[in-house]
Amino acid sequence: MTEPRPLRVALLGCGVVGTQVAKTLLYDQEDLSARVGAPLEIAGIAVRNVDAPRDIAIPRDLLTEDAEALVDQADVVVELMGGLEPARSLLLRAIDGGAAVVTANKALLADDGPSLYEAADAAGVDIHGEAAVAGAIPIVRPLRESLAGDDITRVLGIVNGTTNYVLDQMSSHGLELDVAVKQAQELGYAEADPTADVEGYDAAAKAAILASLAFHTRVRMKDVACEGISGVTAEDVEWADRTGYCVKLLAIAERTSEGVSARVHPALVPKDHPLANVRGAFNAVFVEADAAGPLMFYGQGAGGRPTSSAVLGDIVSAGRHRVLGGKGPQESTYAALPVLPQDAAVTRYQVRLEVADRPGGLAEVAGVLGDHGVSIETVSQTAATSGSATLVLTTHSAREASLAATVAAVDGLESVRRIMSVLRVEG
Amino acid sequence: MTEPRPLRVALLGCGVVGTQVAKTLLYDQEDLSARVGAPLEIAGIAVRNVDAPRDIAIPRDLLTEDAEALVDQADVVVELMGGLEPARSLLLRAIDGGAAVVTANKALLADDGPSLYEAADAAGVDIHGEAAVAGAIPIVRPLRESLAGDDITRVLGIVNGTTNYVLDQMSSHGLELDVAVKQAQELGYAEADPTADVEGYDAAAKAAILASLAFHTRVRMKDVACEGISGVTAEDVEWADRTGYCVKLLAIAERTSEGVSARVHPALVPKDHPLANVRGAFNAVFVEADAAGPLMFYGQGAGGRPTSSAVLGDIVSAGRHRVLGGKGPQESTYAALPVLPQDAAVTRYQVRLEVADRPGGLAEVAGVLGDHGVSIETVSQTAATSGSATLVLTTHSAREASLAATVAAVDGLESVRRIMSVLRVEG
Repeated sequence: MTEPRPLRVALLGCGVVGTQVAKTLLYDQEDLSARVGAPLEIAGIAVRNVDAPRDIAIPRDLLTEDAEALVDQADVVVELMGGLEPARSLLLRAIDGGAAVVTANKALLADDGPSLYEAADAAGVDIHGEAAVAGAIPIVRPLRESLAGDDITRVLGIVNGTTNYVLDQMSSHGLELDVAVKQAQELGYAEADPTADVEGYDAAAKAAILASLAFHTRVRMKDVACEGISGVTAEDVEWADRTGYCVKLLAIAERTSEGVSARVHPALVPKDHPLANVRGAFNAVFVEADAAGPLMFYGQGAGGRPTSSAVLGDIVSAGRHRVLGGKGPQESTYAALPVLPQDAAVTRYQVRLEVADRPGGLAEVAGVLGDHGVSIETVSQTAATSGSATLVLTTHSAREASLAATVAAVDGLESVRRIMSVLRVEG
Repeated sequence: MTEPRPLRVALLGCGVVGTQVAKTLLYDQEDLSARVGAPLEIAGIAVRNVDAPRDIAIPRDLLTEDAEALVDQADVVVELMGGLEPARSLLLRAIDGGAAVVTANKALLADDGPSLYEAADAAGVDIHGEAAVAGAIPIVRPLRESLAGDDITRVLGIVNGTTNYVLDQMSSHGLELDVAVKQAQELGYAEADPTADVEGYDAAAKAAILASLAFHTRVRMKDVACEGISGVTAEDVEWADRTGYCVKLLAIAERTSEGVSARVHPALVPKDHPLANVRGAFNAVFVEADAAGPLMFYGQGAGGRPTSSAVLGDIVSAGRHRVLGGKGPQESTYAALPVLPQDAAVTRYQVRLEVADRPGGLAEVAGVLGDHGVSIETVSQTAATSGSATLVLTTHSAREASLAATVAAVDGLESVRRIMSVLRVEG
């Protein structure tokens, strides 16, 4: 038997993840080669500037600024540069040239996954993106393959470690959001510009990918209703705790009788729900499926080493297909379910109000909710101090649109001094 | 383009799992066929007695007592009969005939997985066994594929729902083991003869499979040190709670510098460990990997519907390979690490003693531990009642063999009235 020819792996990008992937391929490749069934070797690493300072473990002669030439000589192209271009063009070039591709690029997959999948399908090559959602946690492959015989009804994901860390610190130490964000920045959990995390954009890209995989339907980033945590206060977090909840930023993908939807928003999660115990910068994805019932996948969602685990797993999968023949599963979009408008979501709400301490206040509020068809599940009112009391209402499931109208009407009541918060309840 | 020819699926066995798989294939096969890319149809269902009473949803004319003839006409053979024979012979026959095989048979895979994998490899067909470990939870595929680029160091699994339910009831309601087992039997969580669950044999088969997958090394059932929960008392569970732990039956697979080992035993798990929150009959597998760090996979580990999810996922995977070409990963045993003897495990221990309430007692016990090279991490002693006190020692990591010798020596001390319990601490 002849020795199989080496598989040439091209890395595009050499940031925190790329560096870790390169190190493993360079210095720990015996195991990987044994698992693939053929030697793996790095064809090169494309970077913007070969002279930029970087980890000395990366040999200078592997670096190149000519990404296209590198792509053209690779069997497996691993895109870790992020952003839409030139990542997209380079991946399409790789696919057209017959290379398998691995990407960790959530924005690209959420924005334009279909064109990549179609190209890969036409060329008969693998495309893998395990690292694009929830870092080290195997979730893309379980959804695409392990659960391919089941019908998923809902996915609730804590898929942004930065915001989970921030909310956890707010909860543990009573911090306000800006203080907790600053701490997260100092510890390297949040970027200098934390907008993409705090406003939920990062989670929204992942929600689109999760919804597409779960429901065999194309859901794009633009379909995802997105609200970040910038409106969450220390008081919200404290009241959540008092009423038996944790505040979590959730990426939600849901299938109803009308279609599918994806959204990102802060939500109250009951303390006995498995997601409530996801602390610090950890991620977790909770999946509900018809036959399997509830499942949860938990682990580190970011960082160079953890994310490299997912990328290297994809490289091994792609490599095995090169050696053994065959390819990974194609994009599955046969269901093509209607993607519902952003305000179609139906959830439970917790509404917290400051009300005047006088008879009939609760009746007025309850009347308005009833008039709008929003029914109340639980209600509690604190003892009054200086003439006002806090009223906390939890509703049964209601449409986003009805709730908005209801809250506006409640806000107009004489006995209501202030809408303190409106938070969705999930899980 | 011509319509792809239907894939014929043969089911061997029609118990709780088989019935669910059959129902989905019969009445919900449109989705499955779309995901596979070819129509799926049931070739037949082999049973011991076609006239036995069963779910009326299963058409009588699909049933056959001639399993061999059924196997010979199938593209995918799904073995859900359990036991070693005739399951093994039928699967080998299927493989030799060029069919892909799916099995949920943990005993067979743990006992004789290698011969099945070798046959599948030689024939170039898929072999899948996701349902053999932890029911609905995707864990086999994540270990074989998603984590194939990482180095797993440890797997801690709650992989037996019956014993987790029993221990959870003991903990929540202060029940003794026999009462909790009886309850579990009444609720259908435990079988009439609960030996395989209670004594850990079921978990041991899963430990062998997990260790084999995690360490790319063949670990068989006979290599697994196995201790069930029959020695766990209500008092043990209560003391665990008092000292900050839960008692869980764990399937453990571990890689050390000397080799790999697998074992099953009850263990104290700190209450803040993710496994401690796994309640009722749920399963969870906690994985530690070099790059990924800690991961956890959580869900239902048994039952017809949940297990059918894993089986159907495997059927779709096997079907996709039939349609698209290629095959699933082979058995990976290249590492062939030494499988360590059963008493080589190194763990921490909690030892609970009844000691005479007199000066010098603690010093004597501590002295014996020191003489045996076992160092103490924490110690606490309760106030004495009727002349004796309870002493709880937690040790640093020690070898199983040293600990056994130590406990024997401690038992001989004059100040020690009784060894109340010795429990390992994990996680």
